[in-house]
Amino acid sequence: MASTDQPAPESEKAAPPPETIAQPPPRRDCFAVVDVVLRMLLFAAAVAAVVVMVTSKETKAVARILIPPYAVYRTANFKNSPAMIYFVAALSVAGFYALITTMVSFLALLKPRCSTKLLPHFVIFDVLMLGIVAAAAGTAGGVAYIGMKGDSHAGWTKVCNVFEKFCHHVEASVAVSIFASIVLALLVINSAHSLSKRIPK
Amino acid sequence: MASTDQPAPESEKAAPPPETIAQPPPRRDCFAVVDVVLRMLLFAAAVAAVVVMVTSKETKAVARILIPPYAVYRTANFKNSPAMIYFVAALSVAGFYALITTMVSFLALLKPRCSTKLLPHFVIFDVLMLGIVAAAAGTAGGVAYIGMKGDSHAGWTKVCNVFEKFCHHVEASVAVSIFASIVLALLVINSAHSLSKRIPK
Repeated sequence: MASTDQPAPESEKAAPPPETIAQPPPRRDCFAVVDVVLRMLLFAAAVAAVVVMVTSKETKAVARILIPPYAVYRTANFKNSPAMIYFVAALSVAGFYALITTMVSFLALLKPRCSTKLLPHFVIFDVLMLGIVAAAAGTAGGVAYIGMKGDSHAGWTKVCNVFEKFCHHVEASVAVSIFASIVLALLVINSAHSLSKRIPK
Repeated sequence: MASTDQPAPESEKAAPPPETIAQPPPRRDCFAVVDVVLRMLLFAAAVAAVVVMVTSKETKAVARILIPPYAVYRTANFKNSPAMIYFVAALSVAGFYALITTMVSFLALLKPRCSTKLLPHFVIFDVLMLGIVAAAAGTAGGVAYIGMKGDSHAGWTKVCNVFEKFCHHVEASVAVSIFASIVLALLVINSAHSLSKRIPK
């Protein structure tokens, strides 16, 4: 009798409860949470980069003269450089994009079944944004480097010894845009890994 | 004998051959073929961009003098600009990366079961490469634009009226690097869509 009673509780323990198989609870995966956080970071970075670049205007007296106003003033402004204008335009678009996709991603977090359809679309736009923002960071960075160091071979003198505040703003803005590029790269990697985790082994 | 032989062929027709169910033929999806083609394109673009930039050297007489050699010569070379050096380094890395991943992707094409594991890794490196190549294109493009148009506000004169061949090489190289960035973006999008197609509906 003892030998026939033993197997019954073991088989009950091995089999999972039937209701767990029938209705798996919708899982809020950590990829979706990371996605929302990264998009908020991207928005903050893009806004910071644009604000710092737009407020970089600096006016300095570059020479003294005898008649009023007794000095020749020169103004450094991002609007004078096509590279900086492209930078502001690209980062503004990235900020606007981040704002919209943060809301969409947050809504997808509440409805986890939607996110599988959304992810490939997110990847397309994130990759395009990455290309635009990285190119903008490179463009502004390249011009800022000439402003800082000059280029003796081309006869371009440095301007950052005169317009220090302007250059600090541009440097900070470029650094933040590089951070925004890294965030965009992480967003794409996060989406790709989220997709790969949904593939059955 | 005849009646007992009849039912046997009917049951064989109704049931599908057992080997078809047990081993479905490994499908070579079009995403994997597109991946290999895009990687070959990326390799070609990166090599072209590097070769065109490296061969851009141009020497020109910029002033006449009375003593031999009767002229002052100036040389325009990509090595004189940190932006162009970064450009050549980035595109060289991209070309080397494209060469290796073309081979890996081709091997994965022969063994379709491997590609599911490879794709998320490809996405990580493709995205990093996209950031590097797009930034390089932006940096070289920004400096090339100043070379073409100058910047009157910063007092930087244009140099492309003197070094025409050099500038044409740089322009072509930047254009090809933008094409390489687009190919990298398409590679990431292709990988993401390949992953999403493997998720059961």
